[in-house]
Amino acid sequence: MPEAVRWSPDRRAVRIIDQRALPERHVERDLRTLDEACEAIRTLAVRGAPAIGIAAAMAFAVVMADEAGASASDRACRAATIAATLRETRPTAVNLAWALDRMLGVVQRTADRDDWHEALVGEATAILDEDRAMCRRIGEHALSLFPADARVSTHCNAGALATGGIGTALAAVYLAAERGDHVRVFVDETRPLLQGSRLTAWELQRAGIDVVLIGDAMAPSVMRRGEIDLCIVGADRIAANGDVANKIGTYALAVAAHHHGVPFYVAAPSSTFDPATATGDDIVIESRAPDELRRGFGTLTAPPDVPVYNPAFDVTPAALITAIVSDRGVHRPPFDFHASP
Amino acid sequence: MPEAVRWSPDRRAVRIIDQRALPERHVERDLRTLDEACEAIRTLAVRGAPAIGIAAAMAFAVVMADEAGASASDRACRAATIAATLRETRPTAVNLAWALDRMLGVVQRTADRDDWHEALVGEATAILDEDRAMCRRIGEHALSLFPADARVSTHCNAGALATGGIGTALAAVYLAAERGDHVRVFVDETRPLLQGSRLTAWELQRAGIDVVLIGDAMAPSVMRRGEIDLCIVGADRIAANGDVANKIGTYALAVAAHHHGVPFYVAAPSSTFDPATATGDDIVIESRAPDELRRGFGTLTAPPDVPVYNPAFDVTPAALITAIVSDRGVHRPPFDFHASP
Repeated sequence: MPEAVRWSPDRRAVRIIDQRALPERHVERDLRTLDEACEAIRTLAVRGAPAIGIAAAMAFAVVMADEAGASASDRACRAATIAATLRETRPTAVNLAWALDRMLGVVQRTADRDDWHEALVGEATAILDEDRAMCRRIGEHALSLFPADARVSTHCNAGALATGGIGTALAAVYLAAERGDHVRVFVDETRPLLQGSRLTAWELQRAGIDVVLIGDAMAPSVMRRGEIDLCIVGADRIAANGDVANKIGTYALAVAAHHHGVPFYVAAPSSTFDPATATGDDIVIESRAPDELRRGFGTLTAPPDVPVYNPAFDVTPAALITAIVSDRGVHRPPFDFHASP
Repeated sequence: MPEAVRWSPDRRAVRIIDQRALPERHVERDLRTLDEACEAIRTLAVRGAPAIGIAAAMAFAVVMADEAGASASDRACRAATIAATLRETRPTAVNLAWALDRMLGVVQRTADRDDWHEALVGEATAILDEDRAMCRRIGEHALSLFPADARVSTHCNAGALATGGIGTALAAVYLAAERGDHVRVFVDETRPLLQGSRLTAWELQRAGIDVVLIGDAMAPSVMRRGEIDLCIVGADRIAANGDVANKIGTYALAVAAHHHGVPFYVAAPSSTFDPATATGDDIVIESRAPDELRRGFGTLTAPPDVPVYNPAFDVTPAALITAIVSDRGVHRPPFDFHASP
């Protein structure tokens, strides 16, 4: 199992798998400075909401080590600056802000203690360990929905590379393999940025899982052949009524699953549920750069100025979702997440 | 309107748009020799079943001009060799064999005539003109299904670049624009070979049509927003019961259209109907090279040895098709093409 984020052996650096080099090369990099950490997050060397939060918290602890000789008030001032700088690398990432707030809380609570830095390292390690445990709980709950030797379809990357642990949507795949199942996973390549072919196919293959890469419009044909038992995907945000925002193409997969009577599952940590968003209609869909579709492979693949519709994600209505799995259990319709699950 | 295949002004060459250079450059090439013609067909410089047949027939006439001094029997012998060589460039292309058979028939019928070469040029021109007329008839029938200012979704390229005329699936789009409609076309990029983004987007934009390029898994989201009035696609083969084999991804679009209540139309010349094939289950699905998905356009986009499922086309069952349009009219379900339409 690849580990997307962990400590270097001396705990003086954040060791990441540089996901920009995948699938060509498996490169690990140690982030030792604030600049290195910010650049890694900004350029998607480390990505996936949970992994970003963990990497930022660990980087915060690493960089704060330079303040060993500073006064408590200078330390607090520097901490605020570091947190703000890290936060700005991915302004919309909820986990990033949440993890940094936890670290700032520790700075405040340890202002008059000599072991303040050990406490920061401890807090970052706790965030990592909690995420690992959460992935495993999601996986255990989702595994209860898997038949033996399940044939699974997934989209994008909600795997180990996106978390500190064994992933969210892919967690049950790894646990099924762990118990001796022969699991097969059909991976959508996930245009335009190809997280499926670059990342999901890579991490599953590396873990010895039977993986089959397909184009995004091929899953329905595989379903029609009766070769898919279930779909499982991650989520960017889950509304109070159970509508799910996730990577563009998720809705297409859900529609096809519905048509073929294939169960469609969403797996996500409880932090992904947003009781303040009533339905998917309230979720603003961010548009991404047209050139992701026009110059996708470093090559011009479309007329250079052709208009493009390139939303970052789509909304799958609750009616198409068989169950939503969180670290707290399996949630069945009718969904009601006005209180967090 | 781009012309995929036509005569050079002196009728001593086949002038094609070199589709390998699109969308980067609009290059026209004159095919003057058998080698040039074979290479153009083999490397997809000219592509699309009707266009291939036309180009081969015209190239046959061009190359036969060298036999001006030969005896009738030498001519016949040479004709057989040329036809066999052209035929082998794309062994499964039905139109190619059909067009070459027509040309060989002319060679036989004009064995004792001085104007045999004029007859060959005439036959090739007839094949081109018939295709142009057929495209226009398909377009007129399909246009009867279009609302005013239609918002259309299509997949792959069944346009002018695939025919001698204004295309099959796109013919009605061009005719709607001709009558003054504001037509908008959402074009699937069509992985893995991107005929949608490279060819369809290019030819529609060039003709002044309002075109929006999308990823293959985005059309369902656009349908959900209520922005698509109808889908129209081409066909590789149509079974007697109305099941349609077409470019992989067509079935995904049909499933999504069905889910959203969007009419799904197939447009194809009557030569595409295959009464000898009872249903889509009898159609063998050719698998293409895994590297089309693993190394899109020179870049490694997946683990180099990851297993891939990459069928060339899929089968859309008749139950998902609102109507099939041929040059002979609009065919509604229940379909029965045991006799050609």
